[in-house]
Amino acid sequence: MKARVTVTLKTGVLDPQGKAIEGALKSLGIDGVASVRQGKVFDLELTGSDKAAAEAAIKTACEKLLANTVVENYRIEIA
Amino acid sequence: MKARVTVTLKTGVLDPQGKAIEGALKSLGIDGVASVRQGKVFDLELTGSDKAAAEAAIKTACEKLLANTVVENYRIEIA
Repeated sequence: MKARVTVTLKTGVLDPQGKAIEGALKSLGIDGVASVRQGKVFDLELTGSDKAAAEAAIKTACEKLLANTVVENYRIEIA
Repeated sequence: MKARVTVTLKTGVLDPQGKAIEGALKSLGIDGVASVRQGKVFDLELTGSDKAAAEAAIKTACEKLLANTVVENYRIEIA
């Protein structure tokens, strides 16, 4: 089984990295981009076939390690 | 218009960061994860409403700035 975890900054949290990318895009002459926010993505290869158990384990992983839930949201997709 | 660009390492490219996360998950007692690979995600807010033009601009942005196409793949989703 495979899972993808997407971690993004919560709304209202400043994203200096995204701002830098915005500036760089303008310098490169790429217009039409109003704002950029950067996040992280984790592709997990899972052993076992119990989807509910996998989702619970990944939720724990997100809360403990993958996301800083004070400033970040996470989303789990299991395929 | 919004767009999401997902940048992931190509298959076969070593991912030490992913390996470190794998180790950390094991240390935390979270089992069932065979491998982890980390990537990046960019959420772009676009001005204008021409989807084809936006996709072309984002493709240029990916090639020039967001992804290192030697070792990374990118995927563009426009919503």
